[in-house]
Amino acid sequence: MAEEKKLVESITARDVDFAQWYTDVVKKAELTGYTSVKGFMVFKPAGYAIWENIRNELDRRFKATGVENVYLPLFIPESLLDKEKDHVEGFAPEVAWVTEGGLNPLPERMCVRPTSETLFCDLYKKDIQSYRDLPKVYNQWCSVVRWEKTTRPFLRSREFLWQEGHTAHATFEEAQERTIMMLNVYADFCEEVLAIPVLRGQKTDKEKFAGAEETYTIESLMHDGKALQSGTSHNFGDGFARAFGIQFTDKDNSLKYVYQTSWGFTTRMIGAIIMVHGDDSGLVLPPKIAPTQCVVIPIRQKAEGVMEKAEALTESLKKAGILVKLDATDRSPGWKFSDQEMRGFPMRIELGPKDIERGECVLVRRDTREKVQVKIEEAAEKSLEMLERIQKDMYDRALAFREAHTYEAHDYDEFKKLADEKPGFIKACWCGDEACEDKIKADTTATSRCIPFNGGEAPEGAVCVCCGKPAKKLVYWGKAY
Amino acid sequence: MAEEKKLVESITARDVDFAQWYTDVVKKAELTGYTSVKGFMVFKPAGYAIWENIRNELDRRFKATGVENVYLPLFIPESLLDKEKDHVEGFAPEVAWVTEGGLNPLPERMCVRPTSETLFCDLYKKDIQSYRDLPKVYNQWCSVVRWEKTTRPFLRSREFLWQEGHTAHATFEEAQERTIMMLNVYADFCEEVLAIPVLRGQKTDKEKFAGAEETYTIESLMHDGKALQSGTSHNFGDGFARAFGIQFTDKDNSLKYVYQTSWGFTTRMIGAIIMVHGDDSGLVLPPKIAPTQCVVIPIRQKAEGVMEKAEALTESLKKAGILVKLDATDRSPGWKFSDQEMRGFPMRIELGPKDIERGECVLVRRDTREKVQVKIEEAAEKSLEMLERIQKDMYDRALAFREAHTYEAHDYDEFKKLADEKPGFIKACWCGDEACEDKIKADTTATSRCIPFNGGEAPEGAVCVCCGKPAKKLVYWGKAY
Repeated sequence: MAEEKKLVESITARDVDFAQWYTDVVKKAELTGYTSVKGFMVFKPAGYAIWENIRNELDRRFKATGVENVYLPLFIPESLLDKEKDHVEGFAPEVAWVTEGGLNPLPERMCVRPTSETLFCDLYKKDIQSYRDLPKVYNQWCSVVRWEKTTRPFLRSREFLWQEGHTAHATFEEAQERTIMMLNVYADFCEEVLAIPVLRGQKTDKEKFAGAEETYTIESLMHDGKALQSGTSHNFGDGFARAFGIQFTDKDNSLKYVYQTSWGFTTRMIGAIIMVHGDDSGLVLPPKIAPTQCVVIPIRQKAEGVMEKAEALTESLKKAGILVKLDATDRSPGWKFSDQEMRGFPMRIELGPKDIERGECVLVRRDTREKVQVKIEEAAEKSLEMLERIQKDMYDRALAFREAHTYEAHDYDEFKKLADEKPGFIKACWCGDEACEDKIKADTTATSRCIPFNGGEAPEGAVCVCCGKPAKKLVYWGKAY
Repeated sequence: MAEEKKLVESITARDVDFAQWYTDVVKKAELTGYTSVKGFMVFKPAGYAIWENIRNELDRRFKATGVENVYLPLFIPESLLDKEKDHVEGFAPEVAWVTEGGLNPLPERMCVRPTSETLFCDLYKKDIQSYRDLPKVYNQWCSVVRWEKTTRPFLRSREFLWQEGHTAHATFEEAQERTIMMLNVYADFCEEVLAIPVLRGQKTDKEKFAGAEETYTIESLMHDGKALQSGTSHNFGDGFARAFGIQFTDKDNSLKYVYQTSWGFTTRMIGAIIMVHGDDSGLVLPPKIAPTQCVVIPIRQKAEGVMEKAEALTESLKKAGILVKLDATDRSPGWKFSDQEMRGFPMRIELGPKDIERGECVLVRRDTREKVQVKIEEAAEKSLEMLERIQKDMYDRALAFREAHTYEAHDYDEFKKLADEKPGFIKACWCGDEACEDKIKADTTATSRCIPFNGGEAPEGAVCVCCGKPAKKLVYWGKAY
């Protein structure tokens, strides 16, 4: 029991110190580890398995839209990074440089990719000649390096895992369609699989990606009321094509520049899963992304027949397609309960001699702790139903939380008061002037998160919450990770 | 027809210039591409899809043996790489160094991982305290960088994709068991999936991995008679554990060093697939690894009813679980045949108005060109059978080729004559002295490939093929990629 107590005691309460709670969960659920490489994280099996599930499901959804996977070099020569002016300004300050290879100084230093727009442009310039070569809808799964000063597991690290899609099209319209299509793939994935509701919208010019004509974003709300940018999709217009000279001969025999997009989704979303769904007992994983969906925990496992029944039960769940594990270690049942809860596995089944006598077992939800006694022969079916309900309820709760933490500000005093006192999103109208964004950030640390697709136009007669001039857009503001 | 002709003409005949043939296939099958990053390759969709299939199937086999996936940092601080003497000597000359990050020089330079033994040791030192923490059976899928002077697509490149497994065990015996287990996973995968027969054996001390106590290997034979090291598995004993101080408290409360293994399989095996199975028409993919197994090619596709039938046929194959594509482009059938052959898709189905009149279609094997006329409604079933036969026949042919190109040398003159005139493996006895390996290499460029598990002991009274002293081992020798 001492061990059990220690396991539970070692987590900071979520509402006492959210940042410490987060660190505790990441550590106790064994999602990450450290080496002596400063600022870099290790994805341990429990953390990497979540990423594998994200990758497999997103990849399936990508491929259904015609995406093809490729792999491009890890390094970018400096002259290549320099070709698009806005892009290099955005990234040069945060890259790592390789200056020596095979015992010799390199003739030109190369950065470790912080993102690969320039490499894809270099490839597309070689591979695109005719309209027949379009569209190119390529994606790669890889790691990227950005030299962050302060780091936090999943949220900000000098290396992270992601996918980056890079496409080339014959027309601006087709590029725009792909940009929005991929944003919607991300949004649907977050809502349907991660049980995280997202706002879909557009970034202001100030918050755009370096080199993009338009950046679209999905934004989610963490339990501490801070926003997390959860996926972005960029329309580059023909800016990169002009910088790199990517032209094709169209059907009418004229030479045209291609239109390009890029879009990315990263391992920071594992941080979002923790911060949206976790509680004082640890991680809570949505069933559709959990590497283990159910843990069977025998009670008095040395009693006659208990392990046999537990094994048969586990087998029946496996057959039903449930990702199930039997915890047959020599720990106490209480320790196993805490362990399953800490790791966030969506449900457990308790099974002891008394249950077996009655031909029953106990299904316990991780999210609500709700317990249900069911017949052993119905356990698989009831577990499938429970997992489905958990998935739905987790989404509904996250959505209700976001709605309860979305406020409206009609003047600047109200805005500042909300920003100060009410963690969450603030909906407020804006004139479109970057100076107001700067002032709001300086005064409150809140930034414009997005101009939503639904309701992003300012109502007739509305004024900017900051300067009082006529408003153009309705913006979601928030303090962000 | 001009275009069609051009497509076929542009491949060098395999027996005229094998190296050029290889380059032509890689290019024309669109497996790789280039950017301006010298010595680095691009995996284009057709090439990357093969790697995805290799990864998915190997990963499934790994997990069935208890392997867990992780992801460790891309960079290794110099002091960490330096900790194991043999290891750093082996790798330091071929690494790339990062010396600047975020606009500042780094306090200590870091190399981009050429392999991650040292990082896993660093992690294991932190994570292993008790026998309860063992074994650790971790693996990562990633890219590594080695500063090669001359490069060839897939076979030798400054960056390649691979998996590297790194395990820690309580005993030498358990580590040894894991070492051999993973070698057998590789070997079975090569034979059952890639249709490439392999020799399973041990490396001589000279050919061991830097830092390993024993290195085991699988070796395959390419169509030009050269050997390719196709996967290696290393037993490190407790060498790394002593260098890094990785100790655990055993059940008897004594402090012990762990025993470690590592094992890797790389994208060079895509090169092996090309060089074992390819022919003068291009790539030939084994059905079990082909991203597309069958292409349906309509003949006179504008004739009434042809496309409808072709689509229905495609759908019926899809339902049967076949990876099938309908080529509905506006190219000629002849061009499409060449294209399918070049890309190595294992079979095609030709379907024209006359076939449809008879209710039939034509199944064509890529490997033998054998054609079979079958009823349309039986096409799916017959295709499944054909794919199975192709898989088996490809393996059998590769095995027969290897057997026909494996020779025995009983004295040094015979060895040199074989090495000079007969591309392939040479079986010859060896005294165990590195000086003889050096002499053989200097005289013939052949190296010891492995001491086979079966028959690796020299027969009673046998002498070394090089020095004539009593032989200890029977060794397979060959010129290698």
